[in-house]
Amino acid sequence: MTRTFTYEELFSFTVSIFKEIGCPQKDAITASRVLLSADLRGVDSHGVARLSGYIRLWEKGRINAKPQIKVVHETPSTATIDGDAGLGLVVAPTAMELAMEKAYDVGSGWVSVKNSNHYGIAGYHSLMATTKDMIGISMTNASPLVAPTFSKERLLGTNPIAVAIPAGEEPPFVGDMATTTAANGKLEILQRKGSEAPYGWIQDSDGQPTTNSFGVKDGGALLPLGGDREHGSHKGYILGSVVDIFSAVLSGANYGPWVPPFVSFLEPSQNPVGEGLGHFFGAMRIDAFRPAQEFKDNMDQWIRRFRDSEPVDPDQNVIIPGDPERALELERKRNGIPLLMTVVEDLYSLSEKFGIGL
Amino acid sequence: MTRTFTYEELFSFTVSIFKEIGCPQKDAITASRVLLSADLRGVDSHGVARLSGYIRLWEKGRINAKPQIKVVHETPSTATIDGDAGLGLVVAPTAMELAMEKAYDVGSGWVSVKNSNHYGIAGYHSLMATTKDMIGISMTNASPLVAPTFSKERLLGTNPIAVAIPAGEEPPFVGDMATTTAANGKLEILQRKGSEAPYGWIQDSDGQPTTNSFGVKDGGALLPLGGDREHGSHKGYILGSVVDIFSAVLSGANYGPWVPPFVSFLEPSQNPVGEGLGHFFGAMRIDAFRPAQEFKDNMDQWIRRFRDSEPVDPDQNVIIPGDPERALELERKRNGIPLLMTVVEDLYSLSEKFGIGL
Repeated sequence: MTRTFTYEELFSFTVSIFKEIGCPQKDAITASRVLLSADLRGVDSHGVARLSGYIRLWEKGRINAKPQIKVVHETPSTATIDGDAGLGLVVAPTAMELAMEKAYDVGSGWVSVKNSNHYGIAGYHSLMATTKDMIGISMTNASPLVAPTFSKERLLGTNPIAVAIPAGEEPPFVGDMATTTAANGKLEILQRKGSEAPYGWIQDSDGQPTTNSFGVKDGGALLPLGGDREHGSHKGYILGSVVDIFSAVLSGANYGPWVPPFVSFLEPSQNPVGEGLGHFFGAMRIDAFRPAQEFKDNMDQWIRRFRDSEPVDPDQNVIIPGDPERALELERKRNGIPLLMTVVEDLYSLSEKFGIGL
Repeated sequence: MTRTFTYEELFSFTVSIFKEIGCPQKDAITASRVLLSADLRGVDSHGVARLSGYIRLWEKGRINAKPQIKVVHETPSTATIDGDAGLGLVVAPTAMELAMEKAYDVGSGWVSVKNSNHYGIAGYHSLMATTKDMIGISMTNASPLVAPTFSKERLLGTNPIAVAIPAGEEPPFVGDMATTTAANGKLEILQRKGSEAPYGWIQDSDGQPTTNSFGVKDGGALLPLGGDREHGSHKGYILGSVVDIFSAVLSGANYGPWVPPFVSFLEPSQNPVGEGLGHFFGAMRIDAFRPAQEFKDNMDQWIRRFRDSEPVDPDQNVIIPGDPERALELERKRNGIPLLMTVVEDLYSLSEKFGIGL
């Protein structure tokens, strides 16, 4: 069961809620744009479904609605930002803008962020760069749910990486991926259906493979991309670790098992190793490497060659990363965004609590 | 059956062979150091086993022993290098040095390379940065052997990514991974043994999963990390694509199915889309983000927390990426490098051909 809302309805509601908790108008708009881009692009777990979660964190004093976002360390091509416990939805675009300014000045810009919170979908931030003829990179660490290869313990988040690359006539290439076999949102879908999870997605609390889709809730863990050692899970573990280190060890945020949980009913570590959670952003001007038009022409050819390659199944062509999300975004902007009733009820409670109509 | 040689024996032999084909002394030493680091670190497929392959490419005129390596495009933090068809083993360290110089000057340096050849193991180049308190990144495209998700065609190489991160008292973190489920070298080991390959490593010429370890030779393909769609092969495909684009579309090298094959008996494309194959390197000064000692202290804590985490099997602790290769390097420097007899015979033919003793 779902109910469908227009983008505009949800956007204006979300802006009002963020303003109610004290966000300046400009920040409320930015945060809403980032949040809803997840709903538009089909990453429903990271969209308005999380709005009440952000509000609960604010109620607990773990999100600062009026952050003073500051550059605390800097070189011509790099910076570290202190997010002042602000919404990641606001801190992240600020950091990405800085990376792009540096790329404009010296060819590339790289910004590590501490003292932030959950930043929505990784892809949004990387895509900011493509309209300026830049490659955009975005990554973040997250609450520990993932066990490194050979470990029983949850030491890493699903730690996504997004890379957005502009083309010429073709739309940009947008890879946006958790560094696990499956994102947590996919597991939640199986849980709602009462279905089993495929082998290779999760392990139980003894570290043994399980197909119980509640395995993570029962003390198990998500598995790094690859699933098991024989299928390269040590590579997913490397990727998740690099995201953690770039996001948090470079910036001074919490890393590994110390990353604060997104859910308000779990308390952050009493002995933090840093401040908040961390992100990492990069921007590279394509004409810092070769004339932009040459790059775009080659990128168009790259995309067409892959899209037109011979498929295994004639009914399923090869997908260029970013294509399905872009198609869905157009469709949902036109026809509205379907929300599960549990999410709708959540929004109605917020509506009642703050006296904001939806 | 193997025969064991000391590092010094193989090094002096390799230097002499590279000098015989016309490499300047300095380049012959660099190339030998890179090549043999693979043997020391246990990536036997990328070490002296490939020496005769490089020589055959030189005989075909596809490797230039006296390249004029040139910077063809530049900003303060980026550059594109033309490798002039030189040995990748020489071009790559030159490019990495430039990335490090730029990082020294402006915080980070990023170098894309065209017109190069196979560059040995990715990890070697990334590790160059750690001795200077920098993070090192290295990637390269390679001969097409990998099918994107849903494709029958081989459009990508095993396109490795290496990231080396310095620590304080702990040795550096070194992730060095093909973006496929299994590297081609692992498949060759199974072929020699006549063993089957695990499900998820390869597909046959119809694009169907196969456990036939000769599947790739029979017109099939290696599979991207993840193995199949359900286990996230689209993520391995994203990673391999990003490596291809950063290495070749940014630089003007050949990309995708146009990448020239390493083996001399396969001719490069008659309609190349760029020059040679491509690499991409990055260097970031850790003190471009925060004081180096703070970073190192946190990195030591990160490494120790992961290494000491509770293992699934008490006899198999969690591995820090880079640890096994470092241990093997020490062992092989002390006790010598065991080579398969097929490799030894290959070296003896080179010895005879060039009149260089081994």
